[in-house]
Formats: sequence, C-alpha cells, structure tokens
Amino acid sequence: MGGASSRCRSTPFDRRTAPSPPQLKAKPLKKIVSFLPILGWAPGYSKSAAVSDLMAALIVTVMLVPQSLAYAMLAGLPPQTGLYASILPLLAYALFGTSRALAVGPVAVVSLMTAAAVGQVAAAGTTDYLTAAMTLAFLSGLILLAMAVLRLGFLANFLSHPVISGFITASGLLIAVSQAKHLLGISAKGDTLPHMLIGLWRGLGDTNLPTLAMGLATTAFLLWARKRLKPLLLAHGLPPRTADLIAKAGPAAAILLSVLAVLAFGLVDRGVRIVGEIPAGLPPFAWPSLDFGLWQQLFLPAMLISLVGFVESVSVAQTLAAKRRQRIRPNQELTALGTANIAAALSGGYPVTGGFARSVVNFDAGAETPLAGAFTAIGILAATLFLTPLFRLLPQAVLAATIIVAVLSLVDLAAIRRTLVYSKADFAAMAVTIATVLGHGVETGITAGVALSLLLFLWRTTRPHMAVVGQVPGTEHFRNIDRHAVLTDPTILSLRMDESLYFANARALEDAIYDRVADQPALRHVILMCPAVNTIDASALESLESIAHNLAASGIGFHLSEVKGPVTDALKRSDFLQNFKGQIFLSHYAAVNALQAPDPTKV
Amino acid sequence: MGGASSRCRSTPFDRRTAPSPPQLKAKPLKKIVSFLPILGWAPGYSKSAAVSDLMAALIVTVMLVPQSLAYAMLAGLPPQTGLYASILPLLAYALFGTSRALAVGPVAVVSLMTAAAVGQVAAAGTTDYLTAAMTLAFLSGLILLAMAVLRLGFLANFLSHPVISGFITASGLLIAVSQAKHLLGISAKGDTLPHMLIGLWRGLGDTNLPTLAMGLATTAFLLWARKRLKPLLLAHGLPPRTADLIAKAGPAAAILLSVLAVLAFGLVDRGVRIVGEIPAGLPPFAWPSLDFGLWQQLFLPAMLISLVGFVESVSVAQTLAAKRRQRIRPNQELTALGTANIAAALSGGYPVTGGFARSVVNFDAGAETPLAGAFTAIGILAATLFLTPLFRLLPQAVLAATIIVAVLSLVDLAAIRRTLVYSKADFAAMAVTIATVLGHGVETGITAGVALSLLLFLWRTTRPHMAVVGQVPGTEHFRNIDRHAVLTDPTILSLRMDESLYFANARALEDAIYDRVADQPALRHVILMCPAVNTIDASALESLESIAHNLAASGIGFHLSEVKGPVTDALKRSDFLQNFKGQIFLSHYAAVNALQAPDPTKV
Repeated sequence: MGGASSRCRSTPFDRRTAPSPPQLKAKPLKKIVSFLPILGWAPGYSKSAAVSDLMAALIVTVMLVPQSLAYAMLAGLPPQTGLYASILPLLAYALFGTSRALAVGPVAVVSLMTAAAVGQVAAAGTTDYLTAAMTLAFLSGLILLAMAVLRLGFLANFLSHPVISGFITASGLLIAVSQAKHLLGISAKGDTLPHMLIGLWRGLGDTNLPTLAMGLATTAFLLWARKRLKPLLLAHGLPPRTADLIAKAGPAAAILLSVLAVLAFGLVDRGVRIVGEIPAGLPPFAWPSLDFGLWQQLFLPAMLISLVGFVESVSVAQTLAAKRRQRIRPNQELTALGTANIAAALSGGYPVTGGFARSVVNFDAGAETPLAGAFTAIGILAATLFLTPLFRLLPQAVLAATIIVAVLSLVDLAAIRRTLVYSKADFAAMAVTIATVLGHGVETGITAGVALSLLLFLWRTTRPHMAVVGQVPGTEHFRNIDRHAVLTDPTILSLRMDESLYFANARALEDAIYDRVADQPALRHVILMCPAVNTIDASALESLESIAHNLAASGIGFHLSEVKGPVTDALKRSDFLQNFKGQIFLSHYAAVNALQAPDPTKV
Repeated sequence: MGGASSRCRSTPFDRRTAPSPPQLKAKPLKKIVSFLPILGWAPGYSKSAAVSDLMAALIVTVMLVPQSLAYAMLAGLPPQTGLYASILPLLAYALFGTSRALAVGPVAVVSLMTAAAVGQVAAAGTTDYLTAAMTLAFLSGLILLAMAVLRLGFLANFLSHPVISGFITASGLLIAVSQAKHLLGISAKGDTLPHMLIGLWRGLGDTNLPTLAMGLATTAFLLWARKRLKPLLLAHGLPPRTADLIAKAGPAAAILLSVLAVLAFGLVDRGVRIVGEIPAGLPPFAWPSLDFGLWQQLFLPAMLISLVGFVESVSVAQTLAAKRRQRIRPNQELTALGTANIAAALSGGYPVTGGFARSVVNFDAGAETPLAGAFTAIGILAATLFLTPLFRLLPQAVLAATIIVAVLSLVDLAAIRRTLVYSKADFAAMAVTIATVLGHGVETGITAGVALSLLLFLWRTTRPHMAVVGQVPGTEHFRNIDRHAVLTDPTILSLRMDESLYFANARALEDAIYDRVADQPALRHVILMCPAVNTIDASALESLESIAHNLAASGIGFHLSEVKGPVTDALKRSDFLQNFKGQIFLSHYAAVNALQAPDPTKV
C-alpha cells in the first residue's frame, strides 16, 4: 500500500482520516485541515500512491461511463447529463471528502428518486425537466450543507437498517422492471410496479425483436462478464489487476460491440432505438432555477434524496474505511456531498452521491486517496470530449441491460429473511417500505417506512416490560422471578421497570403496581427498581406521586432503588423528594436488606 | 355515606367500581355487569343513597342550567342545544359509566373545540351549523365506542400532562377573551387570540354601556359568590349543605336578577342583547347528517374532541374515585362517553364529556351513584319544559360573565411554573401547545403539542446517556465513575448504556465506545452493561456486530453484562450469539471478576 498506508499508524478509533503532517499541528491549521481533508494527505502524496490512484481511476472510469449514460436515462434525462454529473462533483468530493475510497456520481436509487421528483413538476424531455433536475441537485446540496453546519447528520440515523435495506431492494426491483420496456423496445408508462406491469402487458404485442435480442444478449453477456470473466482470465494466466480491469470493462465492451452491431446490421432501420446525438464538449455552466414555487415543490424530494444519498454514501464509506482501520467523519461527509451536488447543479448534472459498486471497485483497485476520484473525473471529461460521437448509435436496450444487471445486486433477499427472523417490528417496517415503494413510489415508501419504524418504537415504549425480581442466591444481583431461581420476601414487592417513565407509559406502571399489590396480601413495601429508567417526565412524576399516595393509604411503603444520576438530578429539581415518604436506595440489594431488617415476621 | 359505601370493602386496587352482589358472580352475568355497571349497584340501592343522590342532583342542576345555556352560546349554538345536551347524555352515562361522581354535559373546552370545528364547515346561526354540531357529537360517539371495542384507550396516554395542562390553560384564556365582546355588547370575529384582540380593539368604540355595566356587575357578583358567599352563609349559621346549595346557585341567581333587570329597566330598548325565544318542550329526536363529505371534514376534530374529552373525563373521574378508594375502568368510560355523545347527537345536542367543576360539586354534594346524574337529567328536563320562557330576556352579557368566571379556574399558572422548573422538554411541549392554541386555534394547538412531546421523547433517545461505571466499594454494585467513588481497572472499560439500543442511537454507541477505547491504551476488555437496554433492534444488532469486529481487530474483548430476558430471547433468534466471541454475564460484578482474573498485570 506504499507511502500512504505507512502513514496510517492510527488505530481504527482515530477520528482523523489521516494523521496531519507535523507542520499542520497548530490549532487554526487543524481546523482548516478538518474542513479541507485534502490538505491533510496532499503534502505527503507519494509516487506509489499516485500509481495506485491512477490505476483505480482507470477502472472506475471504464465502469462509470456506461453507468453515467444509463442512470441519466433512468432519471429521464439526456445521456450527457450523467457524464456531466461525473466530472465536477468528483473533484468537489476529492477536496472535501474524508473517505479515501468513496466514488461519487449518479447512482441508481437516486436517479430513480430524481425521476419521481422531477416527473411531478415537468414533462420528460422538456427543458423544464432538465432545469428541475439541476435545481433538485442544487437544493439537495444546500440541504446537505445546512445539515453539516447545523450538525444534523444524526437525522440519517432515523433511516433504520431495515427501512434502508427494504427501500434499496424495492428500488432495485422497481428500476429493473422500469427498464424492461427498453429491452422490449416498447413505450410504457407508470411510476409504480402495478402500473409498470400493466403497461408492459399492454405493450407486449409491439415488442421489437431485434431490440429484445440485443437486450437479452447484452444482459447475458454482462452477467457472464461479472461472474465468470475474471476467474477465466486468471485461469489463463493474466495478472490480477489486468483481469480485473478487463472484467470491469464488460459494460464498456457491450457498448462498443452494440454500436458496431447497430452499424453492421443497420439496426436503426429495423426499429432499434438508439441514444441519438450527444453534444460533445465541456459541461455547460448553468444556474439552477431560482423559482420559489419550484423550490417548494422540490424541497421534500430533495430532503429525502439528501438523506438517502447520505446514508448510502456514509455506510459504504464506513465499511471501506473500517477495512483499512481508517475512520470517516460523517459531518464532513455532509459538506463533501453537499458541495458535490452543488457542483453537479452548476455544471448541467443532477443529484449525485457515493455509489456502492463503484466505491468497492475503486477500493479493490487500490485507490489510496481521494485523488483517484479526481483522476476519474479527468477520465470522464475525456470521454465527454472525445467519445460522444460513438454513443450516438448506442441502443437504449444496451443501457437498460447495464442498469438491470447493476441493480439486481441491490435486491437483498437474505436481509429480508434475517430481519423476519429477528424482529417483527423491524420486519414490519421493512415490509411496509418495500410494499409502499413498489405500490406508491419511492418518496411515499421511504416516508412510510421511517414513520412506521418510529411509531413502532414509540408503541413498544408504551407497553413497557416489567419484571418482579428476586435475589440471585449468593450474589447481590436481582433478576426476574419468572426466568431465574431467586429468593423473594412475601412482604416486599421488587418491581423492575424496563423502560423510561414518560407520559405514554406512566399509566401502565400504575396499573401494574396496583394489580400486583392486590395479589400479595402480606405486602409491606414496594420497591421500584429503576436501572432501566433513563428519564422520568412531568407526567410520570405525577404518577409516582399518585402511586406513593395510594400505597401509603393502604399502609404500604413505596421506595425507589438504583435511580440513575440524571434522573436523580431531575427529581431534585421538583418537589417530589420533599413529599416522598419512601427511601431511595443506591442498590436494590441495599433496599431489600434495609427493608427486611425491621420486619418482625422474619428471623 | 350509607348503604353504598358500606359495600365498598374493596381495596383501592380493586379494579371493579363496586363489588357485584353475590347472585351476579356467575361469569356471563359478570360480563354484563362489567358492560352495564348500573346492574352492579342498582340492586342494592338504598334510601339513604337516594337522598344523597337527589341532593347532589339538585345542586348540580342549579349549576348546570346556566352553564348549559352559556356553553351552547360559546359553541355558537342556540341556547336550548346546551340544555338538550344535558338530558339524555346524562342518562346514558348513568347506565354505562363506572365513575360514581362524574357529571357529564357540555363543557367549556369541548364547546370551544366544537365552535372551531363546526365553524370551518358551516356559517354560525344556520341549520347546517346545528346539523354539523350534532354530527360532530355522533362521530365523536362512534370514535369513542370504536376505541372501547378496539381497546384503544391507551391513545389518551399520548396526551401528556404538560400538553393537556397547557391546552386547557390556553383554551381557558381563549374562551375568556372570546366572551369579552359579549360583555362589551359589540360584534367581533376571530378564532385566535391576536384576531380576537384586534376585533375587540376595533369594536371598542361601539361598546354598549348598559351591557358592559350588567356584564361587569354579574362578573363581580359571580366571583364574590364563588369565593365569599359560602363562608358568609356558614358564618351566619346556615347548615353546610344549604350554604353550599345557595353558593352554587350564584349563576342561577344572576340569571334571575338579570332577567328582572331587563324587564324593569327596559334594557332591550337600550341595546342590551338578549338570548331571545327558546322553544320549550322535550328534546327533539334528530338524525345526524349522513353526508360522507361532512364526516370526512369533521373526522379529525371529532377524534381530537374524543381524546380531549376522554382525558379530561377520566382524570376527573380517577381523582374523585381515588378519594373514596374506588377505581374506574377507563375502557368502560369510553363506552359510557361514546353512548352519551350518541345520545347527545340524537336529541339535538352537541359533544359532551365529564366536566371538572360540576363533578367536584356532585362529589362534594355527596353523590353516591350515577343515579345522581339521572336525577340531574330530570332536573334539566324540567327546566327545559318550564323555564325557557324565563330565559328569553336573559342578557348575553350575563352568560358571558358565567363563562368567564367558570373558565378562569382552568388557567393553571402554577402548573406552568412547576413544569418549567422540572423539565425543559416538558415545558417546551407545554409552551408550544399554549402558543399554538392561542395563535392558531385549539386543533392545531393540541396536535402540535402531542407531536412535539413525542418528537422530544424520540430526540432524547437518540442522544442516550452513557456512563463509565466502577464498583461501589464493599458491594457488587456498579455506578458512574463521575458521580461516585468507585473502583476501576485500567484493563477493563465498563460502559453502561442508558437507553434501549435502536436504529436512532446505535451510531452514538459506536462513537462512544471508539472514543473511549482510543483514550485508554491499557484496555483489554470492553463490557457493555445493559440493565437499561430494553430492546436491541436489527440496526443496533449490526452495530454491536461491527463493534465486536472492530474491537477484536485491535485485540480487545467485547462482552455484555446484565442483558435482560426479553433482549436475550431476541438475540437468540439472530445469529449474533453464534458469531459473538465475547461472553454474556448475568451480572456486571461477575463480568469484572471473570475478566480480571486471568490478567497477569494484576496481583
């Protein structure tokens, strides 16, 4: 791994991406480095790192060119938009990003979300549509930067793994089905799975056979190249890196071969739809729309795209960083992705984020610094300048095949099964996300998933687990009497509350105590064991007062044990402790010992 | 307390309102009694209970007649609507209710909510407005019954004390200000505090002085009657019950006196607005509208009215029941209130619920069974049949004064101060509720309050408290090293997670562990102490796996202690335990003991 890795003496728990060179240790400089991570690694950039980065960039470029064209088509945009979105944003990320392997650019899920969002405000193929897509990228960039400044990165935590996983699986399915029309060479509309399937069924009679043949052949070739080509090349004695490069060039090869086929067999005349003229040249500089009405319409989609893009990007970046014992800084990632999206908006692109497949490729190919991304940008720029005439004859079916093969890896059935076994609540959130994405589109789907997962969490806290506990013999430890062989005292009810006490569950505690008190006639003391009570809000405080009052009326003492520091602090601010007749014990063992002692019925 | 109370041998923890007579002990009969609580107490109804109930009914009737007229005016409805809403609903509650003291009927806050809801779908004073109010009662009744059947009473738990308290305080203020125009004798519109104040300011020039004089005089008289009359009468040697009855008759006396004044001084000609003709006779039977569009528009308001009415009613009923060591059954209360509202809808009324002031009066006057409510209904019926000619000349200003004096007791500034001191989050929810009710109306206000209190709860769980713990000397108990003098071992990090582990806080745990590990070079083991971890969801499970993996890569063991039963059950369903290299200890003490032992650096 050469120069760069030899500097990586930091543990995996070091929060810096790279140790700063000594001359940058001063405080203000540290701050600048934290904002511009490139200053951290650029001064020590070595020749061997440059070779690694260049090699990785070459492989990623070869992979990214067809993907950029394909994802732009998926987003309903002209193909060059995808290329534009793969140039400046990569440079922006190279400046601001903290991950050394993340490859940003157009990705499948965000392209689908872009199509859904922009399709609501403009007709596909119009200038308005293009402007709306750029505005969406701009808004998304602003939102990400605002999240960075306001340190709102934690918002991404609300997208739980099952929701994100279900969302990506469903999006993958939706994307694959949406591309089927291109494979068949028919026109079909629909944003949701049922509509798409109906559209496909109705259009089936118009299938263009040469298109279908080319589409199926490409799909088969890409699947083969992905699974079998690299082992085959290695078996024939090619060096691993070369084998990798050739295998990753599968989509590029498919493009070349298909263009040749279109030329050779005159397929355009036989009804095979092609991409058409793509303007060559530098990405255009363009202002996004400043129409406030449009901003309002696009705000929510931009928010969702930002969150989904951020979550996808950060989880890829973290996975890869962990493999090399590096850490990324999620907040700085917000800045980097925000800047990348603004760069996309200003250069004729559309929303971008870190892609899973290409980042893994970048990492495996040995990328050592974000400069690999900058080199990739130069590669894409070269393609934009010199290769666009080639893409004119590119069949749409080939791009569709590229997309289908790429997104099938997003469908993760194992994760669905694992979640089903582990937790009904998690599975419910996942299933609702999948069903809603397929039936109502991406935005409704992810919103429904997040809302449901939060509601299920809340719901669970309203029905708290409570356990009557007893002493584990020979220890000072108290556990559930239903699960462990423990010692109990008939005059003492030890109840452990397994939830924070707040307005939504305070009544449940009252009911539980009153029910158990009614069942235990010899009772003289109730001790509420609070190791799991992380907060007591004003409503629950009133419940505790009412419990204490009602138990006192029946001649039963009410005490608390193992009340944690922050809760004690809060109780001290109220007048609860002044009126509280019971005791508060440091440990439950101390409580039971103290309350047993004066009991004349015990020896 | 006579016959009824002598049967109340049950502890306060008995869930039945009254023990069933022996002949009803059979199961199916018990079920009927649980559904029709009247069957539980009616068979043993004694003469002395009847006398108590009749006396209470008399006082409540005298109090309820003016209130019914006034609250109907507050709801923008003809005065007789308030009387109608105080007859059949009371009978329905007497049949189905579990509280022996609750007095149902029109109440201030629900009247305000009715005005806000109905005002959005019909113009005040029209038949449509009246129909909408009845439909609202019908819908609210259906919702309450549905909640009873589906056992959704827990939904009321989501209205936290601070939100309800803030809501009622703000509603009281809003109601008082809304009545100021009647005191001034001017017309002014506005649903929110700013609009009302602007309307009052603009109309100030049109003030009708006789109206104002009568309004202020009535207000002063009512305040005096409330605070001073009873002590005065007692000082003059009247028996307490008579003194109470006379004092509670203040509003009724004000009505009588004001009608006489209107007659004597020809005040109608001097611009004093009066109530006008009220049709005498039985409440009309009427069907609510079955217009689906109207139902849709009224559904959310009906839901909010149901919840607020239920919460107010149940909290009053519980407070009063606790004083006599009785318990109410919230789910049966849903049935009773639902039936009462349907009865209101079918007899020309509008939404009703249990009122605080009148229930306390009912209780203090000695009501022993729900029959007191039935007697009250007969009293109101008599007033409807025979007294309506009297009310024709009743000045609106007098009703307004009745309302103002009644609602001022709703404003609870002490609760605001107490909440502010105790908890910022609770106070924020309360303050937002108050501000939104005043600025945007009751429905938005309560919705905002509930949403904010839930969000604040969620927010707190995303920033969990975590404590590094050490052994309290001489015990097996472990506490926060920052708060207690405890023993620690440099090779072991004991971290207590003070929150359930779920998607929104899993990352926080990862960060906390990695940060602390980086600070403690001698570390060999991390033990996560889980007494407060009530659940581990799929996202958090992945975080734990990732923590275990990363710590293992640095040669640090990762263990869990005090994992609770339900969490262990969940972990067993996943493959976590198969891959987990660490140990799971019953108690943290056992964990530290076991992991210290093989450490060669320790003696």
